[in-house]
Amino acid sequence: VISLQTKKFTERTAGHCDIIDITARIHEAIEKEQIHHGLITAFVSGSTAALTTIEYESGLIQDLKEFVERLIPSDRRYHHDDRWATTTVFRASGPALRAVHRDTHRQGKASLGTWQQVILLDFDNRPRMREITLELIGETE
Amino acid sequence: VISLQTKKFTERTAGHCDIIDITARIHEAIEKEQIHHGLITAFVSGSTAALTTIEYESGLIQDLKEFVERLIPSDRRYHHDDRWATTTVFRASGPALRAVHRDTHRQGKASLGTWQQVILLDFDNRPRMREITLELIGETE
Amino acid sequence: VISLQTKKFTERTAGHCDIIDITARIHEAIEKEQIHHGLITAFVSGSTAALTTIEYESGLIQDLKEFVERLIPSDRRYHHDDRWATTTVFRASGPALRAVHRDTHRQGKASLGTWQQVILLDFDNRPRMREITLELIGETE
Repeated sequence: VISLQTKKFTERTAGHCDIIDITARIHEAIEKEQIHHGLITAFVSGSTAALTTIEYESGLIQDLKEFVERLIPSDRRYHHDDRWATTTVFRASGPALRAVHRDTHRQGKASLGTWQQVILLDFDNRPRMREITLELIGETE
Repeated sequence: VISLQTKKFTERTAGHCDIIDITARIHEAIEKEQIHHGLITAFVSGSTAALTTIEYESGLIQDLKEFVERLIPSDRRYHHDDRWATTTVFRASGPALRAVHRDTHRQGKASLGTWQQVILLDFDNRPRMREITLELIGETE
Repeated sequence: VISLQTKKFTERTAGHCDIIDITARIHEAIEKEQIHHGLITAFVSGSTAALTTIEYESGLIQDLKEFVERLIPSDRRYHHDDRWATTTVFRASGPALRAVHRDTHRQGKASLGTWQQVILLDFDNRPRMREITLELIGETE
C-alpha cells in the first residue's frame, strides 16, 4: 500500500551564509516511519534559505561560501531597493541553489553517498528559526 | 487514500527572457482538487523555458535578467551552430535555472513564502504558447 | 490504484566531464512497467556525478563543458585539501548541476521535448560504473 507522511523539524540558524548539516535530523525523522522505501522530499520555508548536498568538511564549506560570493557578489549594485534582499533572494533561489532536496529512502535512511551530507544554508542577515518539512511517499506493509 | 491528479494550463509568453508570475494560475488549478495535502510538481514543456521562484517585483526581475545575462552572455561565441539556441538552451537547463518546480500543498495552496512567487521564464527569440503541467500526489478523503 | 516501482541500470563512464545520453536507457527501463502515467524521478549515486537535460549535440556538449569550466575552474585554489575533489563535488552539487532529474511520464516515455535528452555527467578523475535509480509513482489499471 502506498502512503504519504509529513514530518517537520526546526533548526536554529545564524544567518550570513550559515551552513548546517541536517542529515542526522532527517534520518532521525524518517527512521521510525512505516514507509520502508520510496521517495523523500525536503523543503525549507522562506525565500532566504536553501538546501543542497555537499561533503560537510570545513575546507569545502569555505569553498562553497566563496563560490556563492563569486556568483552573486554582495557588494554589487542591484535594482531591487534593498541590496541585502537581492543577494539573499538570488542565493536561495534556483539560480544558485534550491529550497528542495529530493532523495530515495530505504529502511529509514536517505540514499546519500559516503561523502555526502544534506545541508541547510541560511543567507539571511540575522539569526532565524527554520522549519524543514519532509514529505515521504512510499510503501508500507 | 493516495491519488494522483494531472492539471494543465497554457500561458502566452513574449520570449526574450520574459518573466511571468504563474502563482495564481497554479492555485486556481489546484484549489478545487480533492487532494487536500501532498506534493505538487510543476513542469514546463520545451527546452527554452524554465520555472523558478522569486519575489515578483520589478527591481528584482531586472536583477534576475542581468544575472542570467552575466552567467550565460548572449554575445559569447559558442560551438553550437546557432548562438541563440545555445544561450537559450543553457539558460533553461540545469546550469542556470530549471524546468521543474516542486512544492508541498495544503488546502489547495502551494506552500510558498509571503515574498515568493512561482515564475515562468521564456528565453525563446519569439512569442510562444507554453503548457504548464501540474502533477499532484496526495491524500483524498 | 497508485503504485511505486523502482528500476535500476548501470552506465560505464570515462570521467573528466564525460557526458552520456541516457534517454534510451530510461525509456527502455520504464516502457514495460504497468504504471502508464505519473511521475518519474532519476537519481545518480555518488557525489561526483550529475544529471540534467540538454540537446545531445557535439557543439552544445562542448559548450556545456566550457560553461562548467568557466563556472568552477579546475585551476583555481580551493581550501579543501584535494583540488580535484572540490571542483568535482561543486560541479555535481546544487550550485552547478544536480543529481536528480524529474519528469512526467505517459505510456512508458518521459515527457521530454524533441530537442531534449537526459544526460549523465561524470566529473570524476577516473572511469566509473554508475548506478541510475528510477522511482516511478503513478496509476496502474
